[in-house]
Amino acid sequence: MSHQKQQQHHDLFENRKQFQLERLILFSDAVFAIAITLLIIEIKVPEIHHSTDLTHDLKEALSEKFPEFFGLVLSFAVIGQFWHNHHRLFGFVSNYNGSLVWLNLHMLFWIILVPFTTGLNSRYGNLNLVWQIYSFNLFMIGISLFLLYRYIGNPKHSLSDLANDQLNKRFSMYRSLSVAFIFLLGVVLANWDGQLISNISRFVYFLIPVAIGIINRRYHHARKKVHHN
Amino acid sequence: MSHQKQQQHHDLFENRKQFQLERLILFSDAVFAIAITLLIIEIKVPEIHHSTDLTHDLKEALSEKFPEFFGLVLSFAVIGQFWHNHHRLFGFVSNYNGSLVWLNLHMLFWIILVPFTTGLNSRYGNLNLVWQIYSFNLFMIGISLFLLYRYIGNPKHSLSDLANDQLNKRFSMYRSLSVAFIFLLGVVLANWDGQLISNISRFVYFLIPVAIGIINRRYHHARKKVHHN
Amino acid sequence: MSHQKQQQHHDLFENRKQFQLERLILFSDAVFAIAITLLIIEIKVPEIHHSTDLTHDLKEALSEKFPEFFGLVLSFAVIGQFWHNHHRLFGFVSNYNGSLVWLNLHMLFWIILVPFTTGLNSRYGNLNLVWQIYSFNLFMIGISLFLLYRYIGNPKHSLSDLANDQLNKRFSMYRSLSVAFIFLLGVVLANWDGQLISNISRFVYFLIPVAIGIINRRYHHARKKVHHN
Amino acid sequence: MSHQKQQQHHDLFENRKQFQLERLILFSDAVFAIAITLLIIEIKVPEIHHSTDLTHDLKEALSEKFPEFFGLVLSFAVIGQFWHNHHRLFGFVSNYNGSLVWLNLHMLFWIILVPFTTGLNSRYGNLNLVWQIYSFNLFMIGISLFLLYRYIGNPKHSLSDLANDQLNKRFSMYRSLSVAFIFLLGVVLANWDGQLISNISRFVYFLIPVAIGIINRRYHHARKKVHHN
Repeated sequence: MSHQKQQQHHDLFENRKQFQLERLILFSDAVFAIAITLLIIEIKVPEIHHSTDLTHDLKEALSEKFPEFFGLVLSFAVIGQFWHNHHRLFGFVSNYNGSLVWLNLHMLFWIILVPFTTGLNSRYGNLNLVWQIYSFNLFMIGISLFLLYRYIGNPKHSLSDLANDQLNKRFSMYRSLSVAFIFLLGVVLANWDGQLISNISRFVYFLIPVAIGIINRRYHHARKKVHHN
Repeated sequence: MSHQKQQQHHDLFENRKQFQLERLILFSDAVFAIAITLLIIEIKVPEIHHSTDLTHDLKEALSEKFPEFFGLVLSFAVIGQFWHNHHRLFGFVSNYNGSLVWLNLHMLFWIILVPFTTGLNSRYGNLNLVWQIYSFNLFMIGISLFLLYRYIGNPKHSLSDLANDQLNKRFSMYRSLSVAFIFLLGVVLANWDGQLISNISRFVYFLIPVAIGIINRRYHHARKKVHHN
Repeated sequence: MSHQKQQQHHDLFENRKQFQLERLILFSDAVFAIAITLLIIEIKVPEIHHSTDLTHDLKEALSEKFPEFFGLVLSFAVIGQFWHNHHRLFGFVSNYNGSLVWLNLHMLFWIILVPFTTGLNSRYGNLNLVWQIYSFNLFMIGISLFLLYRYIGNPKHSLSDLANDQLNKRFSMYRSLSVAFIFLLGVVLANWDGQLISNISRFVYFLIPVAIGIINRRYHHARKKVHHN
Repeated sequence: MSHQKQQQHHDLFENRKQFQLERLILFSDAVFAIAITLLIIEIKVPEIHHSTDLTHDLKEALSEKFPEFFGLVLSFAVIGQFWHNHHRLFGFVSNYNGSLVWLNLHMLFWIILVPFTTGLNSRYGNLNLVWQIYSFNLFMIGISLFLLYRYIGNPKHSLSDLANDQLNKRFSMYRSLSVAFIFLLGVVLANWDGQLISNISRFVYFLIPVAIGIINRRYHHARKKVHHN
């Protein structure tokens, strides 16, 4: 009987710890969700006054907003990708501590900046300076995710199963680092003197699926090799 | 004892998978909730200066906002209906994968556009162009829900019980497709030359309860027939 | 063994139903939370240009905003009270259906209007018309909560334990109805000819704690009487 | 069998109570998340018209916004710290009542004011009045957290395990009180006549890690002493 009670007490404690962890995750999700939805309120309904052909003028006004829509799609996809990454990472986590809370808040800080840097990008997309700021923001999200992976994967902190799966941990860190450095490349290229290269900097994110694809292939290769031995 | 431990490990793994799925769903809900609540901040408090009869002028200003309120009610009901559909769909889901995450993000993208297209509709409701844009937005939500139903219902992906209930799956897909095509009809009719028909396009959503009603009746009929055999 | 499997299947089904219900509730909470937080973005930071004594002018500008702050506190307290009521109500609920989803969405619709009617009230607080609109909004939240209580408490729908506790159900309905009618009183009094009475209409919400207090006392009295018999 | 049923009924009741408590917590988190994310929409993308060197002018415009970014970082860190505190506190809580709901709403009220007082601070950061208002807001959050700790830690209310751990409770209260009084110090110093001292008031928050560090050291000391006896 006493043993059963002890078990109950242990279960209660585990449940509570589990919920505390879930709360940390759901709080992050709320911030992600608000940041991703705020993207749309940066795009204002065009105001047209004194028009003789309203349909034509509105079409024109909306066409002019094309860079804004493109920026919206890009930022939506990028935040979505980071959320997906965060979702995968915390799938391994089974405990938390104060440092994890702050490393996570650090990542969320760079997430909430995205609606602002996206707005900047929509408004002044042709300036290299603006592309640098935007890329730097995404670079910092990548870095903060890398820091989370490294901390969570460290067996000393006993926060996750990831620590027991060194291969998985290593390649997950490669993944977040490669995304970070692709955006760092964007920062550097946008600063280049030549017009051509600074233009190319606008398309660095196309490297992300390529890089992730290569890393995933190598991971499966390495995994197979381990299983063979 | 070893068997019990294995069971515990299995339970832990199942719990975690379950929470990962719940996180995906609650993240979607947060986006739905923000999009549905942002509808109201598109409606600004009217500014009246230098008035001799403030009550009268405010009444007038609020009456002029009637199309905006009507647009709010419509978009609220439509997002509510799509949420209800998403809620029903994920009631079947018991697993997730990367493709599901992205198909879901795709749907959320069209959801967060709704406050913008609603704002456009409130401001320029008399333009056919605007009604086309708004209807196209809702059409794409319907299509993205259809894609979710098809993917989730596919037994190959082993994500849900829906795959074992072909009748339910088929009629659920009919439901989301019919809503999508009703809004496609809105897009087409709004483009019509005649004033009358393009006006009718504003009321296509009244077809939704009719279509859903017919599909539900047919579903119950088909269900009964299966049970008889 | 087969019996155990059946039990597992039953548990899984119950867990899923439970989560579907929780999702409905947490979605509502997200809408409540956003509506309550949007109240603050209606209050703009005052813009002061060309001032010789900035501190003095800012103090003045903030004093002029006093009605806005008062409106914020009032709406915060009222939404908080409605959330508390919703929280209590859904503590009884153990199942859901399509009608419950829509009755709940109906309530949320009136909730998301609050930031707008609060903004109206802050801007034109001296107009009786505006107080009528604001009170009508809160009246409709009370009514929609009453409809939820009535539906959930109906034994025919087998949604909750409330159906088995007729006394609790009856007094809960009284509570939401009395709040609704206090705001209806606000609507009526604000329409009165005399200045005094239409001014009094601004303070009807002070009746809420009084009414709730009386109802609670009567409830405990009735409860005791039942236990005696 | 009857005993098993009783157990099931008891479990169901406990589960429901647990979810009601979780709902209270997740609602708070949503408000925290929205308030922390709204900070960014106070910072507007600068509008530059008729510029001969757009990059240069934008750089200048963004530099001028430096106080706003600094204010954002500060408020983000402070809300983050308060969230962390709230997270820790509710890790002890195992029950709820109406007073807890309202004490928690009281704290959330001061949280949702932060985007406004931060905006004020960004716009008029050089005014002592504004720093007083901002510090007073944070002081009130600290006080409301202290009230929560005191209420939850009171054994009479049987809401938490904190009541059984008087040492932990006492030092947790010290922690929230010290944060509150550091911001009260900010209010007082900003009112000082001398320019130097009112300037120093802008940096009082640097005392927070110092104070927390001292309290934590004393706590561990006291803990050890108890274990020795």
